[in-house]
This record gives sequence, structure tokens and C-alpha cells, in this order.
Amino acid sequence: MADIPVSPLAPEAFPVVNNIPGVEFGAMATGMRYKGRLDLLLVRLCQGTQVAGVFTQNSMPAAPVEWCRQALKNSGGTGRGLVVNAGNANAFTGKAGVAAVQSTANAAAEVLGCSPDEILLASTGVIGVPLDVTPIKKALPKIVDGLSASLVRDAAEAIRTTDTYAKAASTLCEIDGKAITITGVAKGSGMIEPNMATMLGFVFTNANISSACLQAILAETNAASFNSITVDSDTSTNDTVLAFATGEAANENCITDPADPRLQGFKAKFAAVMEDLAKQIVCDGEGATKLISVTVKGAESTESARIIAKSIANSPLVKTAIAGEDPNWGRLVMAVGKSGEKANQSALSIWFGDILVATDGQVSSKYQEEDGAAYMKRSHIDLILNVGVGDACSTVWTCDLTHQYISINADYRS
Amino acid sequence: MADIPVSPLAPEAFPVVNNIPGVEFGAMATGMRYKGRLDLLLVRLCQGTQVAGVFTQNSMPAAPVEWCRQALKNSGGTGRGLVVNAGNANAFTGKAGVAAVQSTANAAAEVLGCSPDEILLASTGVIGVPLDVTPIKKALPKIVDGLSASLVRDAAEAIRTTDTYAKAASTLCEIDGKAITITGVAKGSGMIEPNMATMLGFVFTNANISSACLQAILAETNAASFNSITVDSDTSTNDTVLAFATGEAANENCITDPADPRLQGFKAKFAAVMEDLAKQIVCDGEGATKLISVTVKGAESTESARIIAKSIANSPLVKTAIAGEDPNWGRLVMAVGKSGEKANQSALSIWFGDILVATDGQVSSKYQEEDGAAYMKRSHIDLILNVGVGDACSTVWTCDLTHQYISINADYRS
Repeated sequence: MADIPVSPLAPEAFPVVNNIPGVEFGAMATGMRYKGRLDLLLVRLCQGTQVAGVFTQNSMPAAPVEWCRQALKNSGGTGRGLVVNAGNANAFTGKAGVAAVQSTANAAAEVLGCSPDEILLASTGVIGVPLDVTPIKKALPKIVDGLSASLVRDAAEAIRTTDTYAKAASTLCEIDGKAITITGVAKGSGMIEPNMATMLGFVFTNANISSACLQAILAETNAASFNSITVDSDTSTNDTVLAFATGEAANENCITDPADPRLQGFKAKFAAVMEDLAKQIVCDGEGATKLISVTVKGAESTESARIIAKSIANSPLVKTAIAGEDPNWGRLVMAVGKSGEKANQSALSIWFGDILVATDGQVSSKYQEEDGAAYMKRSHIDLILNVGVGDACSTVWTCDLTHQYISINADYRS
Repeated sequence: MADIPVSPLAPEAFPVVNNIPGVEFGAMATGMRYKGRLDLLLVRLCQGTQVAGVFTQNSMPAAPVEWCRQALKNSGGTGRGLVVNAGNANAFTGKAGVAAVQSTANAAAEVLGCSPDEILLASTGVIGVPLDVTPIKKALPKIVDGLSASLVRDAAEAIRTTDTYAKAASTLCEIDGKAITITGVAKGSGMIEPNMATMLGFVFTNANISSACLQAILAETNAASFNSITVDSDTSTNDTVLAFATGEAANENCITDPADPRLQGFKAKFAAVMEDLAKQIVCDGEGATKLISVTVKGAESTESARIIAKSIANSPLVKTAIAGEDPNWGRLVMAVGKSGEKANQSALSIWFGDILVATDGQVSSKYQEEDGAAYMKRSHIDLILNVGVGDACSTVWTCDLTHQYISINADYRS
């Protein structure tokens, strides 16, 4: 694969991240697929860590996705370790794929001293190629010796595939007067239209929260973050977001009710980390040069607003127009109409940021094409539409569709 | 807009077309948008011509689409004229757009000596720009003087926008021993995922068939032709397929029952013309270098097979892999899974033409990557999948996604 330049939308530097008490990271370059870069991650979680997960709704889920679903059931939502490999998705690999996840979980359980059911697994890379676990089994005992709480960046690096930069987000808050860290890493660049989760996100906290409570918070914040992004409308077979709460903060009792008022600040900060990570994936969308937010207002329901926003965000004609800095708003009208959702043509309004482009079913008398063209030069484009049939609203993030997307994907396996 | 090279999938020459007794064509270069090329078509239909139509399901239909729907009701499915302009879609143009279609129909009715309700209209081009009817009204009286049954090619030329070649198909058959012509023209290159119709197709015949009977044949053949193609998943606001039967063949009685045994040969030929035109649109898909047919077998229902085939045909990752001649069949698995339709992973089989690639949920032991790579060099790619849950089958046609698609659409309006 040709060298891919770093996304122009990449953050200036890797963010300052806070360690999470109870969580240690280690990574290694096994050479399984990529040469000379980290491609295997091991995370050790302290005893009692609560785990929640959301996974791809693709009906051809990869073996590690099926493993996680089952392991979370078997362990009652607890975990002691996480293993992630990059370069091979272990998807559509039949019985060999099932054997590979079992074998990886056994090896990790051995080095961490726990049950295989307490090991979570995720894979990313090419679909359909059998995963050779030999290098993984060889590497795990070496990685375990170097585990450290401060290696968050290695974790973010080790899970990359076509990602042009490592993605992390971190924040602090308090629960019951105790200092709480929320730190997450993610990867994703192509095959991104997550449906319940995205490929891949891991969020860690030292809060003392039950897995059921954590699952509720994860599901809620996931809807407005990873589930509200799309790069290319292609839902991966491997999408996985896992949340881990080590309980090291030891607030008096484990919090089990997501509506507990002590969690108010935590939930807002957790949502912010999730949104930050999700947007970082869009900013690293294959070939992206523009971050586009699509906000649909005045819809019949939130779900309807979301479907219309996705119809716009996934339209190749909208995305190529923005790549070309062409304020071709007629394509937004087309994309609203093709969504099949209720919308009132004669009440439809469109804004580029603060610029009113169209209103009452036609171009605004005040709109000047030069203003639209100037707005399109920006690296962050806000498209706002009111479809005039109700009060519901939804925002989706996407990126433009450029030559670089074609270049990356026309020879991904070569 | 930069010059776009002729599609490598274009037919070697414009086909030999048969005149249709009762139908005359004329076109003119008005300079409305394009310079020095035909952009306005007028068709005169003899008295008693029966008309059937299928239109876009986009909920933001253009003014001419709404006009046709109403005119067909008012006229009881008869027509005397058709006017098509290229360069301006007259879509999302509010009351001005409604006035423009009324004014165009009035002008055409005057030159043809009929009622405005007997005029059908279609437009194609940019969305959201008010349509100036002055050049149309000026041109129509001039075109009418030069109308001729032999100007089918001018008709096909005049309706082009980003199309790189003019599209027509023609065939002959018999009904009741009378010679019947079926000749059609079409245009379409981008914003192509027709939903009930495509942008634009016109099929003419001298058969003596009632409009209701013609409508039934059109709807049935449309499902397996124009409604089975996609270039970019974007459903136009202007999609229109109209069928015209002049009745000039004068078989004893007008045929009113689509199940009439005398129509058997005619229906097969009509379907062949529709499929030919639909495939010509895919072969002129913006930037296309490969014609791809996707056949899904073993599905729960025909509709389910169709949804899965469309999921594959619209996947940017599938289409870019084929553009890169990369036999990346894992992406087919992803696209089956993201469709949300019932499929059995452990029974899934995939073929490239005659090459068995995957079977029973994993890569076939006999599959050689070199064979797949060699197959991908072809200009016509047949993807065949069996999803292993039933007996239903459907075929969809699409093209690959290339740099040229981006180039065409990033500066379409410039």
C-alpha cells in the first residue's frame, strides 16, 4: 500500500492523557502484517473491573465480536484483560477463526492469571484471511513484563490500520469527592458507518460503577457519538466499543443506577470523551480534507432527523461537491428527498453555518453564490437544514469524498 | 467543467434504430447552459398515442415530474407531445418552477395544436436554479418545422448532461401479424439509484395498446431494468421513464390486457429494450471503467435478494476495490452483513464468474488469489453470491468507483 499522508484534519499533537488507576497497557510490533510498527495490544485490568460493550450490527460479525458477546455473558460483565491485533480482522474465517479467538484468550488468561472468559478481544484489518495466532502467543508473555499505566499512547498506536494518526481522549471529573479519570483510545478510518458501535473504541475509568450501569451510560453516549458518524456508509464486521470501570476510585458503594445524581458530571464527561474519539475517527476518514457536521432540525422524530442527516452524510454527490469546495446545495435537497423521510419541500430551509442558502422551497433572495463558495473553503463545514414538519433534531458527522479515498481503497491489499 | 473522456464501456457505435410510425423528433442547441450542443428536444406524437410513466420516488420531485403525474391523470393517459431540456433540472424552484412547466406546456401545445395536458415534460441538470423559459419558447416554433421520424439520434443527443455518449436501443417484433417497432432513448450518468424510474428514459412503439396496459408492462419491465441499476446510490429528483404507444400498427382492436397472449413476444422485446438502455446508463456511470453485475441467490425473498445486491453494488469499498482490480472479496461479506437482510454466514458462497472464491463461511481451499486477480482485469465483472437461506434471486448492475467520479463531481457546477 502506498504511503498515506497524515490527515490535514489531524489534531496538532497527541493529547495529554491521564493514567487510569487499575489499568496497564503494553504493545509490541509482531510483524504479523505491518513491518516495524506496533500491532498487538495487551491491557491488564485490576480485579473487579466492570465491563460494558456495544458491537457491530453487521450480520456477518467477526469471531472476536462473537467472543466478546459470549464472554461478557459468562463473566457477568467483568474483565481482567483485553487483547487487540491490527492487520487481520479475523472475520469470515469460519471454524479456524473461532479456534483462533479461543487460543488467544487462553494465552492471555495464562499470562494474566485469570479465566479466558475474563479476556476481551478485538481485531481489525483484512477480512477473510485466517489469523495465525503463533506470533500473538509468542508475544503476550513478553508484553506482560513491560505493562505500565502510562503507555496509553502505545495502546492508541497499536490498534491503527489505515489510520493516519493515533486517537485518544482524556478527561477528569469527580464522583463523591473522589478524582475520576476517563481515558479512551479509538481507531477507524474506512469501512465506517457504525451501527451500535464503531471500529474500535476503548474507554477506561477508575469509577466504581456496576457493569449494568456502565452499559446504560455506554449505550446512551454511543448513540450521539460513534453511532452518529459515517465515513463511507460501510458497516464493519468488527465494530467494537468497550468501556471498563476499574472501581479503583472506591466511592463508598458501587454505583448501580445510571440515574444516580452522583453520576451527572461523570456522564457528561464520558459523553464528551466518546464524542471526541468519534470525531477523531471522522477527521481521519480515508482521504478526508473537511470535517462536515450535518444537523437536521424540524423533523418528525429524532430517528427521522438522523436518517435524513445520514442520507446527506452518505451521499457521494454531496461529499464530492464539498471536496471540490462547490456550494452545490441542490444536492442536499436531493439527499433529503431520497431519504424517504417526511419533509416539506415548500418549507425546507438550508444554512451553511450562519449563511441562509435556501428557504421556503427555493434559493434565498439574499443568498450570494460567492458567500457559499467562500464558506466552502473552510476545513469545518456545518450544514444545517430545517425540514419543516416537526421539532426533532439530530447531528451526524462525516468527511468529504476525495481522490485519496479512491487511492487508499483501490489498492488496500496490494 | 473539465472535458470528460468517453466511457471505456461505451458501445462501439450508436445503434441502428428503427423509426416509429406516428413519432417525430426534433432538437435544437439553445445555449441555455451548454454551448454548441443540442439541449432541447421536442417529440410529436400522433393522435391517440397512449402514454405510461414511472417517476422518481424522491420526496422532493422536480416540477416537470409533478407536471407529468398530473397531466397523465388529466389526459386519461394520452399524449401528443414531449419536451425535454438538458442543463437545468427545474427542481427545488418553488412557484417559479411550477410557472415554468405550465408556460413550456402551453408553448408546446400551441405549436403542436393540442391541449397542454397532452404535453409531457422532463428536465435534467442542476438543481435549485430557476429555469428561464424564454429560449425554450423561442426555439419550439423553429423545431416544429424540422420534425422528422428519423431524428432518433438527435433525441438521444439532446437529453445528455454529463453522459459521455448518446443512448438508444431498438428492436422489432410482431403483434397479430403487424410489424411493431420498439425504440427507446435514455440519459443518465450520475445521481443514479433510480427508485421506480430513472433519469431519463423514453420508449416509443407503434403498437396499439391502451395506456393502462402499457403502464402495466412498463412497471413490470422497469423493475428488472432501470430499477435494478445504481451508479452512486443517489436518487435523482427528476427520474422519469415514459412509454408511448402510437397505435399506428392498427391491430384489429386496441389491446387492453397485459396478459393478452398476443403481447408475449412484444413484452419480451420491450423488456430487452428497457434492460439495454438501463445497462447503457451504468456503462456511462460517472468515471466507470467496469460494468459489474451482482447476482444474489439463495435469499429469503426477491426483495431481500435485491436489498443485499444493492448493498454490495452501493458499497464504496467494493466499488473502489474493483476499480483497483483487487479481488478483495472480504468486502462482499461486509456488504452482505451490513444489508441487515437474512443471510447464513456459515453457508455463504461467493463466485467471480465461474471461479469459486468462498464457500461454507470461509475462503475456498481451491481458490487462488492469482485467479481472482486475473478475473478482475476484465471490463465486465460478474459477482455471484449464495446467501444460503432460501430460493429467491435478484440481479443488480453497477459500475466501479474511480478517480474520475471524484473529478467529475467535485467541480460539476464550475
